[in-house]
Amino acid sequence: MFSQTLEYALRVIVYLAGESGPTTTSKIAIATRVPESYLAKVIQELRRGGLILAQRGLHGGSTLARPPEAITLFDVAQAIDPLPRITTCPLGLVSHGTRLCAVHQRLDEAMGHVERVFRTSTIAELLSRPTSSKPLCESPDQIEADKNEKLTRLTVRRKKK
Amino acid sequence: MFSQTLEYALRVIVYLAGESGPTTTSKIAIATRVPESYLAKVIQELRRGGLILAQRGLHGGSTLARPPEAITLFDVAQAIDPLPRITTCPLGLVSHGTRLCAVHQRLDEAMGHVERVFRTSTIAELLSRPTSSKPLCESPDQIEADKNEKLTRLTVRRKKK
Repeated sequence: MFSQTLEYALRVIVYLAGESGPTTTSKIAIATRVPESYLAKVIQELRRGGLILAQRGLHGGSTLARPPEAITLFDVAQAIDPLPRITTCPLGLVSHGTRLCAVHQRLDEAMGHVERVFRTSTIAELLSRPTSSKPLCESPDQIEADKNEKLTRLTVRRKKK
Repeated sequence: MFSQTLEYALRVIVYLAGESGPTTTSKIAIATRVPESYLAKVIQELRRGGLILAQRGLHGGSTLARPPEAITLFDVAQAIDPLPRITTCPLGLVSHGTRLCAVHQRLDEAMGHVERVFRTSTIAELLSRPTSSKPLCESPDQIEADKNEKLTRLTVRRKKK
């Protein structure tokens, strides 16, 4: 229902919300796990949508155009893949026009719920919610577990030799 | 957000809900304004999803597999283009797993709203709602207006001759 591009754009915005200065595309690509060529397109769309700023030069990169308190899920969706609403009859029935039938009214009602959730969710609020999983980050436990796994693998390899 | 195929599938189901016997694809195509080649694919998917039955032979065609009271928007969506839910971390972060971060939780919450609306909307209920626009049908006023427009056009053409 939500596009892959929106998922990627949200990762970019969330990542930049935690950075203090301009960040290069390569650095964003690593943190967000978005393929770099795809990421360039996403960043371009977010710039066009006025959500991120580009700074050129040696220490250039991308920054958020406004604080995470002032960016909602809705803003990101509108920049990338606007939430569609049904405002006129998709069948093109002249007499329906903007007076939708019950089927299209109900579909639009569902879309309206999504829009409300998106409009009331700021990036800042989502980042401050106390959950065990921090957006874009592995938990400290997992980082420790990964380290131990790598060590075990190394030891096994050495023993094989 | 909802695919064109789902829109077409809903038109087919709504139309068949008003028909008493097997209906040919050509007849459905006219009523639903779905291109016949595309419609064949939609009907096939609805058959696979167990929502419509195919009857072969001289007076063959499609019928609903169960009454409109027992078909929801959710059933149609599942047959055509299942509503996606986020159950595991789209980034593939091992420590997030099924414990989603706040961003993915919120996206899934929005999808949950859509699912609830879809699950509680039967085709029968939608068709019985008193709205000025009947699904798939022009209003009697419009039919009258169309007739008058055609007559006017005919008169003008004859006068030109």
